[in-house]
Amino acid sequence: MDVYEKSLALHEELGGKIEISVRAPLETREDLSLAYTPGVARPCKEIQADYGKSFALTRRGNTVAVVTDGSAVLGLGDIGAAAGMPVMEGKCALFKRFGGVDAVPICVDSRDTEEIIRTVHLISKSFGGINLEDISAPRCFEIEARLKELCDVPVFHDDQHGTAIVVAAAMLNAAKVTGRKPEDMRIVVNGAGSAGIAVSKLLRDIGFGELTVCDIGGVLDPQGNINPAQRELALTVNQSGIRGTLADAVRGADAFVGVSVGKVLTGGMVATMNKPIIFAMANPTPEITPEEALAAGAAVVGTGRSDYPNQINNLLAFPGIFKGALKCRAKAITEEMKHAAARALAALVPPSELSPTKIIPDVFAEGVADAVAQAVIDAAK
Amino acid sequence: MDVYEKSLALHEELGGKIEISVRAPLETREDLSLAYTPGVARPCKEIQADYGKSFALTRRGNTVAVVTDGSAVLGLGDIGAAAGMPVMEGKCALFKRFGGVDAVPICVDSRDTEEIIRTVHLISKSFGGINLEDISAPRCFEIEARLKELCDVPVFHDDQHGTAIVVAAAMLNAAKVTGRKPEDMRIVVNGAGSAGIAVSKLLRDIGFGELTVCDIGGVLDPQGNINPAQRELALTVNQSGIRGTLADAVRGADAFVGVSVGKVLTGGMVATMNKPIIFAMANPTPEITPEEALAAGAAVVGTGRSDYPNQINNLLAFPGIFKGALKCRAKAITEEMKHAAARALAALVPPSELSPTKIIPDVFAEGVADAVAQAVIDAAK
Repeated sequence: MDVYEKSLALHEELGGKIEISVRAPLETREDLSLAYTPGVARPCKEIQADYGKSFALTRRGNTVAVVTDGSAVLGLGDIGAAAGMPVMEGKCALFKRFGGVDAVPICVDSRDTEEIIRTVHLISKSFGGINLEDISAPRCFEIEARLKELCDVPVFHDDQHGTAIVVAAAMLNAAKVTGRKPEDMRIVVNGAGSAGIAVSKLLRDIGFGELTVCDIGGVLDPQGNINPAQRELALTVNQSGIRGTLADAVRGADAFVGVSVGKVLTGGMVATMNKPIIFAMANPTPEITPEEALAAGAAVVGTGRSDYPNQINNLLAFPGIFKGALKCRAKAITEEMKHAAARALAALVPPSELSPTKIIPDVFAEGVADAVAQAVIDAAK
Repeated sequence: MDVYEKSLALHEELGGKIEISVRAPLETREDLSLAYTPGVARPCKEIQADYGKSFALTRRGNTVAVVTDGSAVLGLGDIGAAAGMPVMEGKCALFKRFGGVDAVPICVDSRDTEEIIRTVHLISKSFGGINLEDISAPRCFEIEARLKELCDVPVFHDDQHGTAIVVAAAMLNAAKVTGRKPEDMRIVVNGAGSAGIAVSKLLRDIGFGELTVCDIGGVLDPQGNINPAQRELALTVNQSGIRGTLADAVRGADAFVGVSVGKVLTGGMVATMNKPIIFAMANPTPEITPEEALAAGAAVVGTGRSDYPNQINNLLAFPGIFKGALKCRAKAITEEMKHAAARALAALVPPSELSPTKIIPDVFAEGVADAVAQAVIDAAK
């Protein structure tokens, strides 16, 4: 059985990857009178008088909703709310296992942006945070932005920012390992969807020298036929004014980040780059295989796959990001908190271990979520 | 410390009465590849091809949303979504402890009926059932009815039907214990809110002879100033055409069910009844105390309180109702299923134990939820 068949068998056998556990004693009449009626009226009144207590007196303070509309699930595209549930449930299991964060999967059965925003906003008082997942670009930008305005808990689209944080951490260490200063580097990002736009912005803001952003039509041209989110980004990057194809973009660049689809980067293109750092993250087929990239002169290679070194995996970020945000009751996950998370992730690889095949921690490394959480808490102050 | 202070202390200490537990192994890269990417794409595709599989391949098949808008929480009234959470969380803990049903608390931050309906409908594909809780009458009738039309999973307002089912079970046994046939009895229900209307309908439909329904203005008069839900009920009960006050209504009646507010039933009124069965369920102050009712000639007395015999507690119904409905993937909880649940509950008191002070099982009795669940499953066929 391949991994897909084994996964189906696991799901059939388990009947659900998460469940509810009870934390309160419920064995006697007195137990019931404290956990439920009539005693529970008191914590209700406490929250009615002081809204902020809702986080400490219930599980809200440790619970995140993992929300999708099923419009961009993995590489499957728009498969709908119900079909997206196995991914959302899996995400919730990861939140708990790696970050100690309780997470509830919510699939919103709508494609209407306004309806999705309103629905999530109206249930947001049940949660300490909202993790948006697998919502298609460019709708995801507006949905996240509007929910951030409306909700008083953090709203975070992991496909955007989790990816960006881990890429940034890996890039900082890759720069160090190849003896480059971030401010001297030019990085090409290929794929101007939700991940690509967020990756580009974070790399730009955290101090890398220049970003050249490409999509299907080549280098993003602000005057070109691109969407508003892409245009907003395009106006703030590519200081050198490069135009043309991906091949034109990568020539002489220090790094390539692929968050696109297909084997679009050739060995020939890599050979025109500057002892490059190559993060080929298209899943399951990277934009170029590590073998081909290394053969063409790449200095450091990372992918999204677990069967190569340097797996650039969002799992390194989202549990700790929310663990920290929930701990300090942050109302939002700010740019400072994201940068701090990226730097903390990078710092988790001790200098003695840093190498071209070790630029980020392993997902099973001890203390990752706690270190990221602490950095987020410190930055929130 | 009284029960309210103890409850607050418990809530402060626990920081949440429920949490998420992980059922899937997540210890190795292979574990991740099966529970999450890339393997999880397969169960997603399975559901995309066959929607019904969403119940078996995820926890959806065992999960209920406990939904409120915070408009009628316990005896506190309209305290809002966030302040209702301790009750909802407690309900979820009870669902799991007593029925093995996973339950998630969802507080909808709106008072607009249409918004509430739309919000719950749009998230309903995340759940195997919807339990509505603490939503004020008469809005709750429309909300439940519309959600039943829209959703393909059971929608059940426990304040209405859970109460009705347990009252019916208790009344069937109280009739037996006092040597009466249900079809020969006249029962007065005081309080024509969500519980009272549902109780009246169920007692009427399960075979009790006559219902006389009262509210603040006395016996419900279809031509009177009452709401549409009350009028709909009033047109189908009170065959004797009784008019007047509660005292007029109870004179000569066999039973009284109080789902109202205040000490509205006097010993004098009870003395005019027919060796009555008195269920005084107002919480925390019953419509009459058991002591006063018994002194005035009551044959059987029940309340909502745990410090008297015959506690009429919804906890006897909702865990088993949903356990059964989820098990057989019922799309709705039908009248037949409710009647079956009431009869099964009543039958759980063996004839040898049936007495005026033992007309329903104790909430901690073994096998209650399973017996109710089985009856629901059998009735669903």
